[in-house]
Amino acid sequence: MTAQQTAVQQPMQVNGLNVQAAFDTIDAIKADASLARFQFRARNRWVSGGENRSTIRDFYGAGHEDDSRKVAFEFTNGEPPVLLGNNEGANPVEFLLHALAGCVTTTFVLHATARGIAIRELSTQLEGEIDLQGLLGLDDSVSPGYEQIRIRMNVTADCSDDELADLLAYAQQHSPVCNTVCRPVPVVIERVQQ
Amino acid sequence: MTAQQTAVQQPMQVNGLNVQAAFDTIDAIKADASLARFQFRARNRWVSGGENRSTIRDFYGAGHEDDSRKVAFEFTNGEPPVLLGNNEGANPVEFLLHALAGCVTTTFVLHATARGIAIRELSTQLEGEIDLQGLLGLDDSVSPGYEQIRIRMNVTADCSDDELADLLAYAQQHSPVCNTVCRPVPVVIERVQQ
Repeated sequence: MTAQQTAVQQPMQVNGLNVQAAFDTIDAIKADASLARFQFRARNRWVSGGENRSTIRDFYGAGHEDDSRKVAFEFTNGEPPVLLGNNEGANPVEFLLHALAGCVTTTFVLHATARGIAIRELSTQLEGEIDLQGLLGLDDSVSPGYEQIRIRMNVTADCSDDELADLLAYAQQHSPVCNTVCRPVPVVIERVQQ
Repeated sequence: MTAQQTAVQQPMQVNGLNVQAAFDTIDAIKADASLARFQFRARNRWVSGGENRSTIRDFYGAGHEDDSRKVAFEFTNGEPPVLLGNNEGANPVEFLLHALAGCVTTTFVLHATARGIAIRELSTQLEGEIDLQGLLGLDDSVSPGYEQIRIRMNVTADCSDDELADLLAYAQQHSPVCNTVCRPVPVVIERVQQ
C-alpha cells in the first residue's frame, strides 16, 4: 500500500468530525426526512431524599433502534447540604446547564465544520438564577424555573470575527437544548403501575 | 445518656429528608425572601467533535457562596456513531432528560415529605422526540428542540390515589427543570475573550 493510498483512505476530519460522514448524513436526510426523526430516552430511580439515578442507553434514530452502546450510562442527581442533601451528585438544575453548554458547543462545532471553519479552542461559562420561593410554593408569582441563563463563550477559530458572530447566532438558533429551554415545550406526566 | 435523650437528638427523617431542616429552611425564607435566591453555574470545555466536558462545583444560595464541595463534579457530553461520535458520553439532549427526571422526582419527594407522605418506591421513564432537520437547518419550519417530553411515573406511597394525583400535579407545576422546559426561558449568549 502506498502512502497516497493510505491518505485517500483516511476520512477528512475537521474539528474532530468526519466531514464526508456529516455531508452523507445530510444528503440521506434530504432524500428521506423520516431518517431525521429521533427519540431519546432515560430511566430514573429514586434512591432517598434528593438522590436519584438515571440510566441512559437506547434510542431510536435514522430509521432504527440504536445498539451501539454495550453498557448504559449512569448519572446521579444529588443536592448540597443547604438543599437538604449530601452532595451525592450535581443537582438537576446544574445538569441542565451541562446539557445546555454541551448542546450549544456541539451545534457550534457541527456548523463550523460544515462551513469549513477550524476551531482552535472553545469554552463556555454558564450561570442562571432561580428563586426557590417558586419550588417551595411560597409565592405563586415566582416562576419555579430559571429566570434567565447566560452563556459566556470564549472561542478562537480560523475565521473573521463577523463569521464567528454569525456562527454563534446560528448555533444558538439551532441547538436542540437551547431551543427546548427558550421555547415552551410540553411535558406530559402520567402515572403507571408496574 | 438515656435512650430517650438519644431519640430526641435524632432528626426526624421522612423519605430520607430531615423534616425539621426542611421546615426551618421554609421559615427562614418566609422571614427573608432574599435567602431563596440561588445562582447555579457550569464551566464547559470543548474536547473534539461532539465531545466536551463540564465541571460543576460552586454556586450562590441562601445568602452566601457555597463551599461544601471539595472536588468539582465532571460530566462528559458525547455522541453516538450515528451522530458522528464515539459514545464518549451521553449526549446533551439525553442529559436534559436526566435533569428533568431528577427534578420532577426531587420536587415530588420534597412536597410528599412536607405533607407527611412516606414514599416506598418511585421511578420514571422519559422519552422525547426530536427532528434533526431543525438542528441541521434543513427546514426552517422544524423546531430544533424536543417536540414534547413524556414522563411515565411509577410510584407507591402511603396515601390515597387522589392524594398521589394531587401531589404529582403539584410537583409538575413546581419543578424548576420542568418549569424551565415548559415555559420560555431566555438564554443570552455573548462572546468573551480570555
